[in-house]
Amino acid sequence: MKTTKVHFTDPHIELAHGAGGKASRRLIEGLLLPYLMNDMLMELNDVAYIDTTGSRLAFTVDSFVVKPLVFPGGSIGELAINGTVNDLAMGGAKPLALVTTLILEAGLETSELEREIRAMAKAAKRAKVSVVGGDTKVVEHGKADGLFITTAGIGLTDTRVNLSPKNVRPGDQVILSGPIGDHGITVLLARGELELEADITSDTRPLWPFVSTLIDVAAPGLRWLRDPTRGGVATALNELARDAKIAVVLDDEEIPVRPAVRGACEILGLDPLHIANEGQFLVIVSPEYAEIALEALKKVPGGEEARRIGEIQKEPKRAVLARSRYGGTRIIDMLVGDPLPRIC
Amino acid sequence: MKTTKVHFTDPHIELAHGAGGKASRRLIEGLLLPYLMNDMLMELNDVAYIDTTGSRLAFTVDSFVVKPLVFPGGSIGELAINGTVNDLAMGGAKPLALVTTLILEAGLETSELEREIRAMAKAAKRAKVSVVGGDTKVVEHGKADGLFITTAGIGLTDTRVNLSPKNVRPGDQVILSGPIGDHGITVLLARGELELEADITSDTRPLWPFVSTLIDVAAPGLRWLRDPTRGGVATALNELARDAKIAVVLDDEEIPVRPAVRGACEILGLDPLHIANEGQFLVIVSPEYAEIALEALKKVPGGEEARRIGEIQKEPKRAVLARSRYGGTRIIDMLVGDPLPRIC
Repeated sequence: MKTTKVHFTDPHIELAHGAGGKASRRLIEGLLLPYLMNDMLMELNDVAYIDTTGSRLAFTVDSFVVKPLVFPGGSIGELAINGTVNDLAMGGAKPLALVTTLILEAGLETSELEREIRAMAKAAKRAKVSVVGGDTKVVEHGKADGLFITTAGIGLTDTRVNLSPKNVRPGDQVILSGPIGDHGITVLLARGELELEADITSDTRPLWPFVSTLIDVAAPGLRWLRDPTRGGVATALNELARDAKIAVVLDDEEIPVRPAVRGACEILGLDPLHIANEGQFLVIVSPEYAEIALEALKKVPGGEEARRIGEIQKEPKRAVLARSRYGGTRIIDMLVGDPLPRIC
Repeated sequence: MKTTKVHFTDPHIELAHGAGGKASRRLIEGLLLPYLMNDMLMELNDVAYIDTTGSRLAFTVDSFVVKPLVFPGGSIGELAINGTVNDLAMGGAKPLALVTTLILEAGLETSELEREIRAMAKAAKRAKVSVVGGDTKVVEHGKADGLFITTAGIGLTDTRVNLSPKNVRPGDQVILSGPIGDHGITVLLARGELELEADITSDTRPLWPFVSTLIDVAAPGLRWLRDPTRGGVATALNELARDAKIAVVLDDEEIPVRPAVRGACEILGLDPLHIANEGQFLVIVSPEYAEIALEALKKVPGGEEARRIGEIQKEPKRAVLARSRYGGTRIIDMLVGDPLPRIC
């Protein structure tokens, strides 16, 4: 039983508190959990598990406030379906049903709304999940930013897997499903505020087909799954290192980053490991299942670029390190501040 | 199978589209359902049902954008718990778990956020339900209005009841749990824009204890339950009349309205039947169970003012009528426009 003491002392909410990095964690652990504490929420997973007669359900919710509403490769409506479907998938759960709410700003053009509803329907069809209910609120012009979407989902957990940071052991392997940073950099450039162009698109897509395949071939070896959205791979792995009390050691050269993303990051002084993804995920798998998991992942359409990027070690506990080809090692920290607000 | 044709032709979204009345229904039926159509959503209930091994789950979601954040008798955090718990209760489901998202405006004072998190925790405790997960987003100052909360919930449906407009029959009785309009008028006056004061407070409260009692004593006779929030009793009953293809005939004098609410409505030219409630509900019950249901409801603390307010008749189909003491009859229409924006 942890303490219930509130220890969040920032006087105001700032953008960084929503960025998914250190400030977000301080807000959640320092203010939200002390009041809304319970065992399920304490695990800080993206899904909660609920046992009912005969089945274990996964339950999750996300709000989407991405700006702009449309960007190369996707839009808020598509994110709002895939994001929730992917949280369920990362919990080892096949999506059963979604419910969604729209907060609309008065004055929003109906054509914009229709475009996003159509995007949601298309994404739901692709992910083979139904939107079964919803709610619509409208606020005055100037009191929202066009359209915010919230999507909650329930899924049926596959009983063959048991995913938890607690199951992660030294020697386990780290697999990444493909190149990172596409989503974050695409949205950033779509704002048109930078004198920068690049031929990249968001990676938003449903991840359940990949997870389903992994479960089929490597269920006993699967330890932990996570889609590194806000805060990127660095933040997701730091959370794992902290929760599992282990070290994550990455091979710097093995982390796939497209040249356009790498170039934009260099110009902007960002680390691709901190950039949000919407269609990639990390797998921690036991050594004996690592090869079969990786090969299976590569055979799923869209999984061709998956690779092993590192492994779990015993020390230094609660740290993420990256080793370069030349033998150097750098510490990979969580995201601090918010270089890319409203990315999802 | 209904048509999938989009027939919503308003060029922009306006406040009325979020008011829960006719414009909301046009938006939902004309734009949202044609794309996100499926059998569950088509019933336009506040909950969707999902059958899993061994149990029937209810699943619901609501966003809360009430202004001001705090008002006599409640606040947005309390509404965000009770509103979702009550949607489940109206679906005959005991709340199992909630998940919640916060959309915060940068610059929000932490003390305001803490007050609302505390209100959520208190309301969840009162409703005996856990918040098991969540998400926090922050948008720039001026891009939201302090704090929007969305809460999704799942509940376990009591198998003794089968609630649907399809089960409603002529002769069924209409019971109302207590006085109407308190919430809407309280929030309206709390804005301080009117030169009007009244000693009333919001009626926000969890309704499951009432429903649980009703199920225990009158399950075979229960046809339909609804908490008349946005759009009020008039809109809820018009939706019932339309969906069940029957007439709802009310006894005007039997509808409980506090003098302060009636007075404010007269001054503002509003009908109490159109004002939102957050702690009252309507029951349609078969004649043989009406008396036992009403008596049981009155014995639950807070249910003392419940009464029979009307009955279901065969004709005129799809209409709601109110009969006065003097023999006159008036047609009660759905809410048109939005006299009270952002009431929940």
